[in-house]
Amino acid sequence: MPADERVRASEGDNLLQLALEAGLHINASCGGDGACGKCRVLITSGSVACRDSEKLTSDDYGQGWRLACRSSVQGDVTVEVPRQSSLQAKVRDERIHSHAARHAEGSAIHVSMLDPFVRQYTVTLGKPDSADNSSDFSRLQRQLRKEHDVETEAMELDALQDLPQALRSRDGQVTASLVHGRIIRIEPGSTAAHFAVAFDIGTTSVWGELIDVQTGLVLAKSSAYNPQISCGDDVISRIIYSLKPGGLERLQQILVECLSLLIDDLALKSGIDVKNISQITAAGNTVMSHLLLGITPKYLREAPYVPAVASIPPMRAREIGLPVAGAVPLILLPCVASYVGGDIVAGVVASGMHETEKLTLYMDLGTNGEIVLGNRDWLMTASCSAGPAFEGGGLTCGMRAMPGAIEGFNLSADFEPMIVTIERKPPLGICGSGAINILAEFMEMGILSRNGKFDPRLAASRIREGAGGYEYQLVESAFSGTGSDIVLTEADIDNIMRAKAAMFAGCHALLENASLAFSDIDQIIIAGAFGDYVDLENAIAIGLFPDIPRERYTFFGNGSLHGARLAACSQKHREIAELTARRMTNIELSEDRSFMDKYIAGIFLPHTDINLFPTVAARLADGRAGS
Amino acid sequence: MPADERVRASEGDNLLQLALEAGLHINASCGGDGACGKCRVLITSGSVACRDSEKLTSDDYGQGWRLACRSSVQGDVTVEVPRQSSLQAKVRDERIHSHAARHAEGSAIHVSMLDPFVRQYTVTLGKPDSADNSSDFSRLQRQLRKEHDVETEAMELDALQDLPQALRSRDGQVTASLVHGRIIRIEPGSTAAHFAVAFDIGTTSVWGELIDVQTGLVLAKSSAYNPQISCGDDVISRIIYSLKPGGLERLQQILVECLSLLIDDLALKSGIDVKNISQITAAGNTVMSHLLLGITPKYLREAPYVPAVASIPPMRAREIGLPVAGAVPLILLPCVASYVGGDIVAGVVASGMHETEKLTLYMDLGTNGEIVLGNRDWLMTASCSAGPAFEGGGLTCGMRAMPGAIEGFNLSADFEPMIVTIERKPPLGICGSGAINILAEFMEMGILSRNGKFDPRLAASRIREGAGGYEYQLVESAFSGTGSDIVLTEADIDNIMRAKAAMFAGCHALLENASLAFSDIDQIIIAGAFGDYVDLENAIAIGLFPDIPRERYTFFGNGSLHGARLAACSQKHREIAELTARRMTNIELSEDRSFMDKYIAGIFLPHTDINLFPTVAARLADGRAGS
Repeated sequence: MPADERVRASEGDNLLQLALEAGLHINASCGGDGACGKCRVLITSGSVACRDSEKLTSDDYGQGWRLACRSSVQGDVTVEVPRQSSLQAKVRDERIHSHAARHAEGSAIHVSMLDPFVRQYTVTLGKPDSADNSSDFSRLQRQLRKEHDVETEAMELDALQDLPQALRSRDGQVTASLVHGRIIRIEPGSTAAHFAVAFDIGTTSVWGELIDVQTGLVLAKSSAYNPQISCGDDVISRIIYSLKPGGLERLQQILVECLSLLIDDLALKSGIDVKNISQITAAGNTVMSHLLLGITPKYLREAPYVPAVASIPPMRAREIGLPVAGAVPLILLPCVASYVGGDIVAGVVASGMHETEKLTLYMDLGTNGEIVLGNRDWLMTASCSAGPAFEGGGLTCGMRAMPGAIEGFNLSADFEPMIVTIERKPPLGICGSGAINILAEFMEMGILSRNGKFDPRLAASRIREGAGGYEYQLVESAFSGTGSDIVLTEADIDNIMRAKAAMFAGCHALLENASLAFSDIDQIIIAGAFGDYVDLENAIAIGLFPDIPRERYTFFGNGSLHGARLAACSQKHREIAELTARRMTNIELSEDRSFMDKYIAGIFLPHTDINLFPTVAARLADGRAGS
Repeated sequence: MPADERVRASEGDNLLQLALEAGLHINASCGGDGACGKCRVLITSGSVACRDSEKLTSDDYGQGWRLACRSSVQGDVTVEVPRQSSLQAKVRDERIHSHAARHAEGSAIHVSMLDPFVRQYTVTLGKPDSADNSSDFSRLQRQLRKEHDVETEAMELDALQDLPQALRSRDGQVTASLVHGRIIRIEPGSTAAHFAVAFDIGTTSVWGELIDVQTGLVLAKSSAYNPQISCGDDVISRIIYSLKPGGLERLQQILVECLSLLIDDLALKSGIDVKNISQITAAGNTVMSHLLLGITPKYLREAPYVPAVASIPPMRAREIGLPVAGAVPLILLPCVASYVGGDIVAGVVASGMHETEKLTLYMDLGTNGEIVLGNRDWLMTASCSAGPAFEGGGLTCGMRAMPGAIEGFNLSADFEPMIVTIERKPPLGICGSGAINILAEFMEMGILSRNGKFDPRLAASRIREGAGGYEYQLVESAFSGTGSDIVLTEADIDNIMRAKAAMFAGCHALLENASLAFSDIDQIIIAGAFGDYVDLENAIAIGLFPDIPRERYTFFGNGSLHGARLAACSQKHREIAELTARRMTNIELSEDRSFMDKYIAGIFLPHTDINLFPTVAARLADGRAGS
């Protein structure tokens, strides 16, 4: 009330969050931590769980007043939003649907697909006697042939060292782990466990999963910042760092240390002994793949942009220093080119675009944006340097998508902000998806022109002149977690516009290369952690994503990690990844004149050519008409 | 003079040594160091180079007297041996021929055989451009295919790390080292060097060679004691040590340290950079092979005597800690059984017995004596624990064949000794070959009965009663390098008799197993450092070697090292070694009743069945008749 809006919610859902998702504006300047006290609502029936706040007196409590940001649903409840909290009843209702098409992340791999790189066979050897005292190894080989029709040629030293004891502890029953005819592990009995670790090695974050390769189930997940951040934020600065004396070694070492800690953490969380991990699979961009292996990325950055290695031969994880048994293979997903890496190949294969008839556009948003266009018949790829804006970098008050980052944003009719931060912690800054939401809302409410300039006349209480042009004050210093104002400046907006222009121009250039139009696209797959949080409608509104029917969009989450998990469980998919990488034609956009033209045209909201964004054009017209 | 014996000698040959080899007795108690002064000879024509001695006055010098032990030939020379130095003019003349059939050790491998495990190919890659910016690795693969028709699948991490720089330092010309389609090393230019190290890893000594695999030439040699000696003298005591907590790790570690020092020494001696060693090949007995790899040898010693591994898959030398580049393979010659190892297989292949029609008996004398019987059609092998007597162990004054060890031995008519030590250093003890010579001389001169007991009546001045029966005093304490008497006791003689009985019974049992007799043997190959110094006639005289025509004997030196060198230079020979090891049927003598009977019968001089030693029987009869 008073908008008479009904929202289906789960027990424990936060009232402020629900209001945002329902498109209802409630004033909130502090991000949802109870500090500003502006989000007072009256509970007229039902009840909510509510944490105390000094902003409400005991009288207020008695009358049914609560702070929306501190209240969570406990059953059917009717909430009245008072006039001072809700100045504009309805915002837009598309938002709540924008997350509908998300893939379930971390779902189990189908058992029929299980075909891991490392395979296990249990055999029982008879006791040796003087008539047959051939070596343990040769009797094992013979029995593997007899019971499983498997030929083995070689055996790892660790496994050989374990063999005599293993053969003599369970009446001759042992389980052998094989990779291509090579015995890499031997365990007594038949209850051998078989686990893999899959990594996505991003420039900013590293994600790991521990998988039971016999069931395909993910038993534990873990993540950490890529500690190479201390040597530079993006791949270019990492390459530069690697050229310093000892730089390459240090970059490799700290990354390996990070992966080692993740392995330990995954083992701890899942209760698995590290020695039972028999495989490591990783997907990363080309620079990360080179750095992980201690191979200089120097020539990735110099024309003609040649990787040292793209299809990376399997090697031993311990060779780079990972704390696993000696023979455990390290499998890296293949790269395509200097700026299209194994993370993209992994995502393409995991998304199935390599085998679909549908014309698919795969986008991975990050500091380096990668785009793949095609289907089962052809694949074309490009990368475009979007800059760090989508990760909150390059903004005056930018930050990564961590607790306290402003993500939800809504303006009241008099341009007062309703902000919701991640985990409703005191606001610290603006993350990438938040910046897009803010920009879209500014556009929608008409306080920002299509070339990204504020109209200070409209929101005089919030828009002011700063060092680099006008800025909008989102949070007053009194309510921020940093003690300073949180603002979005015109310079920030320019950065975001350049980033989205690069991504969109990349898609456009690839399509043009294939003589296709946006309307030909059957599906768009948005990958990346950023893609996971971005609001589809807002991203289209600012011109980041193409304006095509929304049902063609799929949010795919961490495609790189999905692909690494697939490759860990299925040798066939690893081979498919190799073939797919070879099929992908890389287009160097930096040398493409048409791309530059499209990029310039894209530095506009949503685009210089508004016809590319028909639904946005229509809504803007409506909005103007309505206001 | 006065025996009118002519000897062909080289300049620098020692007079005492020449007399011994010619079968002429000259009294000498101090081993040839000028201490006793008993070996006075008169130079009647020509001249000798002679070091001073206080045992000769200047008058003596003027008259032409010299000490034989300190004199070396400088041209034609006539030497008169005075009556007090030479009481029996002629001993035997067969001895000088006994070393005739020695193989030249360390000879170069024939170039046509060169076919190393690691192969090198030089290619020149064009500069990458934007039309072809595929990875360095894939361009290298393509060029190897184009220029050399070689397919490569994988590449070692070290090599990958070196690749970008190597490709860009000599206009794209690089040399790749390959093992079975795997690139293990990459170097700029075409001048790549290619060296291998071959090891013989003995229980007592370790021998190493550095070989230029492009020419087959041995560039340097080195050797050291096996430091595991500190953990036990023979393989059984090493096995026992390995079962203690940390024992196996320590045995492996000190052996690897020893090999590492040898590698450094070989590199230093040959002026080769260790990083240019691209292959390590080693042959060792089964226990040494297990210990080198850190695999428990426990079950080698327990019936039914099962090795953990016999045909040892190639692995990386660095995996066991050798200080070579990461991908350098370690190739161990295959073993046959618990006590017939890669050293024997190596020797068999190097000797060519696996491909000859001739029925061949191959004997490797050491603490553990190994025997192989057969030809290109079949091979049978056995080991017999001879004990350490042949290495000077188990004797009251025994020692290894080092400077100061008594090797040459001769008795005068009144049973006074003429001894010659290795390098004519003051006598320190008796080595294995020396013990055989002494025993044969005792037999020949009739002061030792055929069951190994002294006749104290005959040499009363030298034979005396000691703690364990009679003993012969070889060196008085005044002339010994130890300050004590050097003696050979009846207990020592019993040990030597048991050792030779075991070896002979082993040969006999193998022959019987094949329904053959000693007379059927076409050739006998004596391997091992001990075999290198043993006197053939004396070894037959005491019943160690079969009494067949002497020209059928070949002394082969370190067969294990020969074989390791062959395998290092020729992949074909490595494969032959694998096939040969599989062809060798091991006979467990310890469970063979007939072997035990033959062993007991052999504890006699030369044997209970004197008909097995016809020439010895004839000479003994002659000697008795003549004396």
